[in-house]
Amino acid sequence: MANLPTKQKLWGGRFTGKTDPLMHEFNQSLRYDKRMHAADIRGSIAYAKALTKVGILTAEEEKKIVEGLQTVGQEWEQGVPDDEDIHTANERRLSELIGPLGGKLHTGRSRNDQVATDMRLWLLGEIKEVEAGLKGLIRVMVERADTEKDILLPGYTHLQRGQPIRWSHLLLSHAFSFHADLQRLQQLTPRVSVLPLGCGALAGNPFVVDREFLAKELDFQSVAENSLYGVGDRDFIVEFMMWASLAMTHISRMAEDLVIYSTAEFGFVSLSDAYSTGSSIMPQKKNPDSLELLRGKSGRVFGNMAGFLMTLKGLPSTYNKDLQEDKEPLFDVVDTVSASFQIAEGVVATMEVHADKMRQALTMDVLATDLADYLVRKGIPFRETHHISGRAVALAESRKCQLNDLTLEDYRSLNEKFADDIHSVFDFEASVERRESIGGTSRKMVDRQISVLRASLEN
Amino acid sequence: MANLPTKQKLWGGRFTGKTDPLMHEFNQSLRYDKRMHAADIRGSIAYAKALTKVGILTAEEEKKIVEGLQTVGQEWEQGVPDDEDIHTANERRLSELIGPLGGKLHTGRSRNDQVATDMRLWLLGEIKEVEAGLKGLIRVMVERADTEKDILLPGYTHLQRGQPIRWSHLLLSHAFSFHADLQRLQQLTPRVSVLPLGCGALAGNPFVVDREFLAKELDFQSVAENSLYGVGDRDFIVEFMMWASLAMTHISRMAEDLVIYSTAEFGFVSLSDAYSTGSSIMPQKKNPDSLELLRGKSGRVFGNMAGFLMTLKGLPSTYNKDLQEDKEPLFDVVDTVSASFQIAEGVVATMEVHADKMRQALTMDVLATDLADYLVRKGIPFRETHHISGRAVALAESRKCQLNDLTLEDYRSLNEKFADDIHSVFDFEASVERRESIGGTSRKMVDRQISVLRASLEN
Amino acid sequence: MANLPTKQKLWGGRFTGKTDPLMHEFNQSLRYDKRMHAADIRGSIAYAKALTKVGILTAEEEKKIVEGLQTVGQEWEQGVPDDEDIHTANERRLSELIGPLGGKLHTGRSRNDQVATDMRLWLLGEIKEVEAGLKGLIRVMVERADTEKDILLPGYTHLQRGQPIRWSHLLLSHAFSFHADLQRLQQLTPRVSVLPLGCGALAGNPFVVDREFLAKELDFQSVAENSLYGVGDRDFIVEFMMWASLAMTHISRMAEDLVIYSTAEFGFVSLSDAYSTGSSIMPQKKNPDSLELLRGKSGRVFGNMAGFLMTLKGLPSTYNKDLQEDKEPLFDVVDTVSASFQIAEGVVATMEVHADKMRQALTMDVLATDLADYLVRKGIPFRETHHISGRAVALAESRKCQLNDLTLEDYRSLNEKFADDIHSVFDFEASVERRESIGGTSRKMVDRQISVLRASLEN
Amino acid sequence: MANLPTKQKLWGGRFTGKTDPLMHEFNQSLRYDKRMHAADIRGSIAYAKALTKVGILTAEEEKKIVEGLQTVGQEWEQGVPDDEDIHTANERRLSELIGPLGGKLHTGRSRNDQVATDMRLWLLGEIKEVEAGLKGLIRVMVERADTEKDILLPGYTHLQRGQPIRWSHLLLSHAFSFHADLQRLQQLTPRVSVLPLGCGALAGNPFVVDREFLAKELDFQSVAENSLYGVGDRDFIVEFMMWASLAMTHISRMAEDLVIYSTAEFGFVSLSDAYSTGSSIMPQKKNPDSLELLRGKSGRVFGNMAGFLMTLKGLPSTYNKDLQEDKEPLFDVVDTVSASFQIAEGVVATMEVHADKMRQALTMDVLATDLADYLVRKGIPFRETHHISGRAVALAESRKCQLNDLTLEDYRSLNEKFADDIHSVFDFEASVERRESIGGTSRKMVDRQISVLRASLEN
Repeated sequence: MANLPTKQKLWGGRFTGKTDPLMHEFNQSLRYDKRMHAADIRGSIAYAKALTKVGILTAEEEKKIVEGLQTVGQEWEQGVPDDEDIHTANERRLSELIGPLGGKLHTGRSRNDQVATDMRLWLLGEIKEVEAGLKGLIRVMVERADTEKDILLPGYTHLQRGQPIRWSHLLLSHAFSFHADLQRLQQLTPRVSVLPLGCGALAGNPFVVDREFLAKELDFQSVAENSLYGVGDRDFIVEFMMWASLAMTHISRMAEDLVIYSTAEFGFVSLSDAYSTGSSIMPQKKNPDSLELLRGKSGRVFGNMAGFLMTLKGLPSTYNKDLQEDKEPLFDVVDTVSASFQIAEGVVATMEVHADKMRQALTMDVLATDLADYLVRKGIPFRETHHISGRAVALAESRKCQLNDLTLEDYRSLNEKFADDIHSVFDFEASVERRESIGGTSRKMVDRQISVLRASLEN
Repeated sequence: MANLPTKQKLWGGRFTGKTDPLMHEFNQSLRYDKRMHAADIRGSIAYAKALTKVGILTAEEEKKIVEGLQTVGQEWEQGVPDDEDIHTANERRLSELIGPLGGKLHTGRSRNDQVATDMRLWLLGEIKEVEAGLKGLIRVMVERADTEKDILLPGYTHLQRGQPIRWSHLLLSHAFSFHADLQRLQQLTPRVSVLPLGCGALAGNPFVVDREFLAKELDFQSVAENSLYGVGDRDFIVEFMMWASLAMTHISRMAEDLVIYSTAEFGFVSLSDAYSTGSSIMPQKKNPDSLELLRGKSGRVFGNMAGFLMTLKGLPSTYNKDLQEDKEPLFDVVDTVSASFQIAEGVVATMEVHADKMRQALTMDVLATDLADYLVRKGIPFRETHHISGRAVALAESRKCQLNDLTLEDYRSLNEKFADDIHSVFDFEASVERRESIGGTSRKMVDRQISVLRASLEN
Repeated sequence: MANLPTKQKLWGGRFTGKTDPLMHEFNQSLRYDKRMHAADIRGSIAYAKALTKVGILTAEEEKKIVEGLQTVGQEWEQGVPDDEDIHTANERRLSELIGPLGGKLHTGRSRNDQVATDMRLWLLGEIKEVEAGLKGLIRVMVERADTEKDILLPGYTHLQRGQPIRWSHLLLSHAFSFHADLQRLQQLTPRVSVLPLGCGALAGNPFVVDREFLAKELDFQSVAENSLYGVGDRDFIVEFMMWASLAMTHISRMAEDLVIYSTAEFGFVSLSDAYSTGSSIMPQKKNPDSLELLRGKSGRVFGNMAGFLMTLKGLPSTYNKDLQEDKEPLFDVVDTVSASFQIAEGVVATMEVHADKMRQALTMDVLATDLADYLVRKGIPFRETHHISGRAVALAESRKCQLNDLTLEDYRSLNEKFADDIHSVFDFEASVERRESIGGTSRKMVDRQISVLRASLEN
Repeated sequence: MANLPTKQKLWGGRFTGKTDPLMHEFNQSLRYDKRMHAADIRGSIAYAKALTKVGILTAEEEKKIVEGLQTVGQEWEQGVPDDEDIHTANERRLSELIGPLGGKLHTGRSRNDQVATDMRLWLLGEIKEVEAGLKGLIRVMVERADTEKDILLPGYTHLQRGQPIRWSHLLLSHAFSFHADLQRLQQLTPRVSVLPLGCGALAGNPFVVDREFLAKELDFQSVAENSLYGVGDRDFIVEFMMWASLAMTHISRMAEDLVIYSTAEFGFVSLSDAYSTGSSIMPQKKNPDSLELLRGKSGRVFGNMAGFLMTLKGLPSTYNKDLQEDKEPLFDVVDTVSASFQIAEGVVATMEVHADKMRQALTMDVLATDLADYLVRKGIPFRETHHISGRAVALAESRKCQLNDLTLEDYRSLNEKFADDIHSVFDFEASVERRESIGGTSRKMVDRQISVLRASLEN
């Protein structure tokens, strides 16, 4: 009864052969995991040395294997074979080159610990690049902020004009997001740098290879303390993708600001031609494509993270083949985030800032808080001064004039504490300079921020 | 002041040139949108005809353009050029082939309406394939169910044995999920089949091309009624990806069942070799990789959907470059869902079913509900019979025996309505045959399900 | 050995009792599933009738049960009991009221089919409200569009000014998104209206209740054809939440447009006071909080959907307790989407539109496409006229003037086909009227859209 | 023209009043942000002190305000008012109690910096509880592992039996996931502990309050260095929710293992009654509801994170009302993750482990790797011994016997290096003891893991 279905083939007519070519393709990971070929070779060389230390290989055998592996590594420049995965490809080719001895390399090792090792090694290399890109972006923002401290514009909340700020203060607010990303990246790296090699299939290594030696050879900071965890854990991938999702959100929020500032209506910035494109039909157009792509890519990175987390969520422990779905999203996230930092750096470095348009947007109503604060300094509770200032705004609106066009009499009709010094309120520079608590937009506090960020780039 | 940054280049030293090569790559979509080359050509040919109808082209010009486009289409077999996108590639090549006349093709057309048209055309073609694959999967399940109705096994809730069911009933429960997927796919197709061509950049077509003619030429069911909506709407992509996410969830839930049924402990099914793989280190292993990959891919499809929806969510109306992030996820979803239906069909068609192991799992406790129902038929309220049956289960457990090993006296000590006919309860076949309301696991109701599903495959 | 852990209690000291109060709370669903109390009563009344039809209840018993259930239903107005779930609460109270007879109601029924029935009944009721809210929103948009057709503004792509459009055309572009939502909602409703009652725990109903009778009693359109599917399927929830996620994305995109149009820099619309709020510190502020909340809520709805889909994804078939996580997200989605449609309707109905500011934003460069089209009509290929128009734009920019400030000589220096009629190009009204293909922004095509949408509201 | 819509009320008939009651509800956050009432009072007291330091308040005024705030704080035990939000509620009540002086408290402070401060303060308190719960869970797992080291079972990959392991090794593999969660939680806490108070609405504090004093008063580790960042940053919420999503994934994977191990077919563990529930219809059922809920809750936590990240993603910088959507998901995540750690601790502490069933599952085929390793130690390359061992497995299968039932002759027919000592391979204890590299399942390596984890609980 048991094998009745396959005998009768009532429904299985299409599937009589031993293999389904589509299944071969579905299962094969080489088309993407080939990116880890150098990591795989490097891990194998270290493992060969460890096998020698426990007597599985002689010194002579190790030498042949290592040389064979180096040759295999060089051959990758000439093209991609058709094996199931990178590990199979490298081992098969090694045995072609050096014969049955190649078959000793896998002693006590499984693809389970091997692939986890390859991915961590590969990612550790990429993280260095990503970190450099992130620092480059922060650096450009800090340098630009240092140069353009004189430029004032309205700070917005709810996209409505709020209070005057320095342009540098806005740039630095984004830089502080990236600064936190840098810190997070540096903190997660040691969790990537945990060696799985020597965990075997799941239960550990029965030839008692020296895993601390392996870690040292491969520049890992620590070894996985539990073999089941070592082969089944993909948190380092999730954590990196979560990190990237948050970092891309910062890119996206900065891009959103700049897209809006690039409109004809705001006119605060213009992207350089290198980061803009035209329209196929509207001759006057210059579109901020780079910013829109940056903004769009943040969805993509999130999607990779969310999808893999869903895959991971319901799995039993140790290795399940579902985990093969870790590679393509990770590769895509690394590529996207790397490129995004560089594009963002280029955009920020080369955009034009229109200080005149920013200044024009500084209407007097953004000093309404300062007006209320003026009365606070004369002893009136803020909650009351807030209402008085609101009435002044309404009065100016009804007269279609600005706050500084109202007369002292107008003001005194609202509250008798208004005096001659009222007009000192209507000074944008003075307003920003009053914000001199830590974190404020005064020149001194902006300089402090620049110092903090510069120091963080030293590490 | 405005252009001070680019002049001084204090921070922009790396970015002095007119272009950033990375930006070229970041912006270029040809490496993936080339998949739509045939759709793009087809759309352009239809558009050329429409231009002739409104007098922008002469019949002669149309002929040259159409022939030129056909040549361009054939050239795609020879390799991929290096243009920004598929539209640019085709138009540039057309002009190389037929001269300045090629420049007339874009009259009144924008890449905005063109790309939306290409994607819809391409997807409509793919949906046909996907639908066929889905039907193939349902068909195999139905045929298999029809053949294996005699096999009984425990039905599980919470992965605990509940009540006996027919194996076919289980197979069909998954088939009904796919049946709903089929219905949903057929319902969403008309919303893909809405023509954007003729919407122009955003405001409509000023040469008053006949869009209903275009729709007919390109086999669209309707035309977009609002040009802003036509160029900015990507709901057809979201909707397809949502559809695919739900369909993959069904694949995943079926795979989860089968992975568990494939364990040594359950032993209900064995996958054919074509859909299994071995271990690099553990010689005895035969792993259900195909099922695990199917399960894993459902996360991937969700991730594509979730990521693109995030990208879409905050955008202003009409076209924004963020929308370029629609293509790669859609392509990946189409490829994944297509392959998954086919793999799933192969797995189901070729797996062995172990009726003996299923029967062994039918322990008498799965008849406890029938035992309670026995007393219901003798007039005792169910809530009470439920407790009596529970006490019988506890008694058997304490004696380490099965329910049918208890004596009539044992049963009568629990309730006096138990009589000689008690042992008629301990019959799995009778139990399943009693479930004869619609949807039940009796043979007749299983046959009804098969009829319903077969009928749905006719459409 | 087996029970060593609980004996020694080395680590279990805190857990010696029979129950963990936190587990009681973790497991209890009554605090939220009480919302379905009326649906639960209604389903039970229908089920009592069905039991009578198959002889489990006498007419007298049915009468007592039905009256008892009605009393239980009325008591809900007086407060919430402390049972595990809504089904337990209602059944317990029924038995308190009418004695052991109450225990007959659950004959052949399980909480598995009961809860699925309750949720579908409840949701069907809510969908009617949601649909009415959606139609209300569309209606307001259509009526407003019909009244304000004279108002022109720039249409934007990439948030850059593109071509002139009618304000009504923009409003209607959003209305068409909601129109597709309406269609989708109407299509998914029959899949909600599938009766699970009579599926029992998982294998079907052994007392052969008439499920078509039940469906008729409860206004369901069809019955679940497979009992395993009937109790384990939550696609109707996923599908509704996916629907809501997409609909909220439309709300969000419209909100994004309006938030930007509400800035001081654009100034195109002002929200009424009812949908704005002030600042606790900045007296001049009037913030578009309603729009921001609408935009923010769309993330929330997506999160509910994504979270539940993740929960569902890896489950084996039939009922697993994980499915209890379906209720809170569904309830939240229904509440959020209902409120959002009503808020959006209010915002759109009451906002002020500033036609003068829209007109000011119509700078001549948005006619650059029309300028290129002018030459197309004189026989020059568009690709060439696009470049000529681009040079005109550049010339005007260099002179800091508008396109219509250039002289005929200027134009003729760019191309000799320019003639006296050139100035006819610089007419925004003429530009929009030229877009007279279906979907265009001309008055006639806008009227067509209004007709299409009005007709859809009739259903 | 501008206000024509509201005048004519053609479509706005429903919206004539000054307020929309639904909008009031939509906007009001008090029903959930009341949870932060103590944090809000605490922050206000600190701020009053800071105002005194800069001369805005006299010592006498400060005293009255502080006493008033303490009274307001106590009143929260008596019920919830109907204000817009927690800040408004507290300030309004303060002014009722102490008169206009209450209006001085908001000097230089905005709800923007206030709410960010409240949330961080509140979360810092919760993190302590969460950390304690996490440590409790790890501790139970470690203690249990320490006691049950003698129990062996098959380790699984792909849910197929792989190699023998210690039960403690499996428990510890999950504990190491939680150990990494602990580390991550400790790393993210300093990023929560960044004080926003004193950032004002967006531009900083114009009364130059001493923010380092405020930080000290409120036990914050640092102050936000940029005011725009301070009011607009919600990364601490995202980061916590990402952390919780990953931690819940670990709970879910452990639950998945235990659900499967609780099946009749595996039978490895039984949950205590406190964490199980029965069936309303099937008397024999005992379902692992606690584990299923834990598994289900992990989707919910992810959904909260994903939804809020989507909300955050497209926002411009600083405060936008969309950010109000941060609270409900955060509160739900904190509640869910706290309860989940405690439930998981209870489940693990009280479940019964069936060592006999685990032993029964140890079939000889799980020693196939050891068989291959046996020959490796005799000098044959592993790739070859892997095939020989595979042939032995096939031979045993064909004879329906176990590997240790094959004779020495059988083995020698496969390879001549097999010798009398072959039967030493068939010893599960010896197999696990051979895994003595770090991370292996030998007793010594398990003890090492216990030491590592215990040490981590000291911090």
